[in-house]
Amino acid sequence: MTDTSLISVASLGGGHGLYQTLKAVRLAGPANLTAIVTVADDGGSSGRLRRELNQIPPGDLRMALAALADDADTPQMWAQLLQHRFGGTGALAGHAVGNLLLAGLTELLGSEQQALDTVTSLTNSAGRVLPMALEPLEIEADVSGLADDPRVMNTVRGQVAVATTPGTVRRVRLIPERPRANPAAVEALRKADLITLGPGSWFSSVIPHLLVPELVEAINDSSAMVVVVLNLSAEAGETSGFNNERHLHMLFQHRSDLRIDRVLVDETVLGSDTDRRYLERAAANLGAGVVYADLRAQGESGELLDIHDPEKLSAALKRVYRGS
Amino acid sequence: MTDTSLISVASLGGGHGLYQTLKAVRLAGPANLTAIVTVADDGGSSGRLRRELNQIPPGDLRMALAALADDADTPQMWAQLLQHRFGGTGALAGHAVGNLLLAGLTELLGSEQQALDTVTSLTNSAGRVLPMALEPLEIEADVSGLADDPRVMNTVRGQVAVATTPGTVRRVRLIPERPRANPAAVEALRKADLITLGPGSWFSSVIPHLLVPELVEAINDSSAMVVVVLNLSAEAGETSGFNNERHLHMLFQHRSDLRIDRVLVDETVLGSDTDRRYLERAAANLGAGVVYADLRAQGESGELLDIHDPEKLSAALKRVYRGS
Repeated sequence: MTDTSLISVASLGGGHGLYQTLKAVRLAGPANLTAIVTVADDGGSSGRLRRELNQIPPGDLRMALAALADDADTPQMWAQLLQHRFGGTGALAGHAVGNLLLAGLTELLGSEQQALDTVTSLTNSAGRVLPMALEPLEIEADVSGLADDPRVMNTVRGQVAVATTPGTVRRVRLIPERPRANPAAVEALRKADLITLGPGSWFSSVIPHLLVPELVEAINDSSAMVVVVLNLSAEAGETSGFNNERHLHMLFQHRSDLRIDRVLVDETVLGSDTDRRYLERAAANLGAGVVYADLRAQGESGELLDIHDPEKLSAALKRVYRGS
Repeated sequence: MTDTSLISVASLGGGHGLYQTLKAVRLAGPANLTAIVTVADDGGSSGRLRRELNQIPPGDLRMALAALADDADTPQMWAQLLQHRFGGTGALAGHAVGNLLLAGLTELLGSEQQALDTVTSLTNSAGRVLPMALEPLEIEADVSGLADDPRVMNTVRGQVAVATTPGTVRRVRLIPERPRANPAAVEALRKADLITLGPGSWFSSVIPHLLVPELVEAINDSSAMVVVVLNLSAEAGETSGFNNERHLHMLFQHRSDLRIDRVLVDETVLGSDTDRRYLERAAANLGAGVVYADLRAQGESGELLDIHDPEKLSAALKRVYRGS
């Protein structure tokens, strides 16, 4: 089956990386599209709602809904509304309207998943959005380089703190550890023909999925092609100075039995032949081959941006899938 | 034209009174239904949003949208979502989701009316909702009985303060005085076949419409039948101890040239024959006849409630209109 209009796709991630991936996947027009989203955010509007209402932080889920919202009738209206943040300097400042809508629906309906499915239906969404777990989680990291002695490891807790640490993240954990997966996410992975993981904030949006045992089991048990989409650049803070090989190695280090088929890498981020060899060796550790493609969006004056272009990524995913 | 399915109806009011009226009017299935809503609320969720975001207070508008939201596909889902108030004790506590949705749309689209029309469209609304003016207004009242000397008049400012004053409200003003009307409201009134005013908080939801000169001119110039629906009981606070005659007299006192055709009164609120004669005389001052009808909702055990029953009010409005 090489026609992407007939397949089921499950995309794991969070934040802006997942947003771009979902835009890319929906362009491929799959029969089914499921976003599986991290739930460990503790910053900004999401963090405030999480603390105030004791709900799964909605921000990453909202972005996924915005990426999938239909824009046929009222172009971009839903996506813009979901993403719009209140201005001013008051209690609402910075809250995204979509976060408040999700929070209100969750209170009203008594279930985050029902709230998400309601927005999915309202926005005539191109896919379903699932939190990876049904409880809010926390991220905790072992970080080196914060003390004078580089061998000293500090514990940094919270998604924002991990994402912005000036130290080097060595390992992350979820709290509670080994959480139960959202059963709907497990089912979507088992039924998927194509599974994507990344791009995104490596320690806070990508690796957390590998720390939910049932998700990895579902990925490994599925007959899907599993594609990891690498980031276009290291992020200031959590992956500062990390090259492609190091990104892949981090997946292996957190879940060495993860089965991957392809690693999709932007061709412009490659350095020397040596870098390429190291990357391919790290991919092989996870059972994967590396695919190079033009993935980077261009600005108005043609400059390359640090963001995946949905059309380029869509075309690359289709080529990779058909090549299977 | 006595078939209410062919007519245009404009309903003026605010709060719970307008909510019940709109439910009643939509049951009559008019060709067009426009809610014209007060914008002087300064309490609760609306007051906070008004101060924080400098917008028209959304609460009364939201209630009107909830009354008109379609419930065919997902019974009461939209109405419930719009009306749902956040719990907890944090910054969101007490905010209605619909208020936040309207506020977000207003920021996004740059116009309260566009925000309202967007929700109207989303909810497949049975009618259009218009703020009576396009700027937030304040209510100020002359109140007696607050000082030891009953002849002393105090100024009370703000909708909440007026609605809850322990004194007797003598007269209310809008600030700014004589505001411009929403042009769309003027147009709806001019085209209407039936105009309803009330029930509702008399000084904060009903009389404010009479303080917008263009609205009264449009009512008086229209060929519509104008029906005032009286309250079922005096409200603690602003109309404490006011009888039906006094309610009508208050309309006359604030705008003596208002043209009314009918005053619709629940038959159970009438006292003695004398009360009835006084009421009819007050109605005649405004050019109106009095119609008595069974309008009161009943509780589960058959007790009469202080709320209009939408079906009874709908039937009464149809009878009154057809009798014209």
